[in-house]
Amino acid sequence: MRLYNSGVHARFLVPGTYGRGDEIDLPDEEARHLSRVLRLGSGAVVRVFNGQGDEFSAIVTRATKSGAAIRIDAPHATVSEPRVAMTIAHAVLKGDKMDDVVRDVVMMGAAAIQPMVTTRSEVTLPALDRGHRRERWERVAASSVKQCGRAVLPRILPPVSLDEVIDALRRVTLGQPALMLVEPSANTSVQSLADLDSIPPREATLLVGPEGGWTTEEVERAAAVCRLIRLGERTLRADAMATIAIAALFTRWGEY
Amino acid sequence: MRLYNSGVHARFLVPGTYGRGDEIDLPDEEARHLSRVLRLGSGAVVRVFNGQGDEFSAIVTRATKSGAAIRIDAPHATVSEPRVAMTIAHAVLKGDKMDDVVRDVVMMGAAAIQPMVTTRSEVTLPALDRGHRRERWERVAASSVKQCGRAVLPRILPPVSLDEVIDALRRVTLGQPALMLVEPSANTSVQSLADLDSIPPREATLLVGPEGGWTTEEVERAAAVCRLIRLGERTLRADAMATIAIAALFTRWGEY
Repeated sequence: MRLYNSGVHARFLVPGTYGRGDEIDLPDEEARHLSRVLRLGSGAVVRVFNGQGDEFSAIVTRATKSGAAIRIDAPHATVSEPRVAMTIAHAVLKGDKMDDVVRDVVMMGAAAIQPMVTTRSEVTLPALDRGHRRERWERVAASSVKQCGRAVLPRILPPVSLDEVIDALRRVTLGQPALMLVEPSANTSVQSLADLDSIPPREATLLVGPEGGWTTEEVERAAAVCRLIRLGERTLRADAMATIAIAALFTRWGEY
Repeated sequence: MRLYNSGVHARFLVPGTYGRGDEIDLPDEEARHLSRVLRLGSGAVVRVFNGQGDEFSAIVTRATKSGAAIRIDAPHATVSEPRVAMTIAHAVLKGDKMDDVVRDVVMMGAAAIQPMVTTRSEVTLPALDRGHRRERWERVAASSVKQCGRAVLPRILPPVSLDEVIDALRRVTLGQPALMLVEPSANTSVQSLADLDSIPPREATLLVGPEGGWTTEEVERAAAVCRLIRLGERTLRADAMATIAIAALFTRWGEY
């Protein structure tokens, strides 16, 4: 069994600016993973990336109970990022389902995730704040970039309401075009993906609703700044919708 | 919260041939679900479908501890099936992961699922048989068709080896074209989805490997009867690959 499909060496995320010859300490959690989980010692060859697109080979120079250090070696080829920088504005789902959404859209290549509270969300912005959910999603995203081989760590934006997302689209502080995914039962006119320009845009925003769907009024309001899309006639699991929509959009835009 | 996104009434799966006015007993499991979980009684309006594309409104005529019966009413409009009848030949994954694959590819609209054992599968055909895994996947598929709104229950084919799948493709007893999903790291020439004919075929077979991927030799053997496709440069979770590939192919074929 291969632990790391994308290569033979373990990958560690160490934010910052560094280059060949630098010796750097690993963050605590990465050091624990190196020495206690993977049981690597001095001399082991690993990979390190800074979450901003730089990746290097590195050699473990210290691995003790109190921490680990590596010496940066040659730059390493990175997995290229998708041409379309997609922001996924996703309604926060129930329980831990949002963790799975974050994990999967990071794996798909999302540039940023905008957690959102909508009319039918079963959670409030203050509750997300109290639960330190954004920090949790940042850890989930970091774990996912390591697994999927990306060298770029997508940003988790501070949770906001759908209204704020609509405002941001109006002010073009979120990428355009914006596409709102509506349910098969939504009584509204939608565009086929074939109607979308096949030339990939530089940026895009995808809006995905909660388990209970959007209200009619939400769809109407968003339609002023979004195109409405639908993915077939079957009802999709709420936590799989973003992944499926990204796959479809990437295909339309020649990414696959 | 809406329990059934695809409509207001609970849906029950009752195989067989029946029509308006017929009074039929629900299978035990469906009867339990009706009376104990949903707590429906005589007079409740429900929906019933036979798994072969027929769906009806129905009225509960009996709901007791020992069983439940319904009287079939008018035919009900069904969710249309995808134009391309896709068979998903999927390597059996570890633990319960295959349950999730079955659930999700049924939701996506797969016509059939062909469980497969490959070189890097961590399970054998006799072990699948002893574990009654096919029967389990049939239950998962039945549950998924009810949730996603389909009126057709996809077949779960008896598990076979990859060699048998390749033979079946050669003898055209599995739908063509056949597409084998290979990993980003696979050192082989793949086709872009844009190279596929955009006219939807009537049938198609998608081959998806296990967690550890295909062996080089497996890819070479399959390449005689399959086109190789790849979905971006990021390493995808094994249990999400089929869903992502179906979304991409459906987009290419104008289904979305």
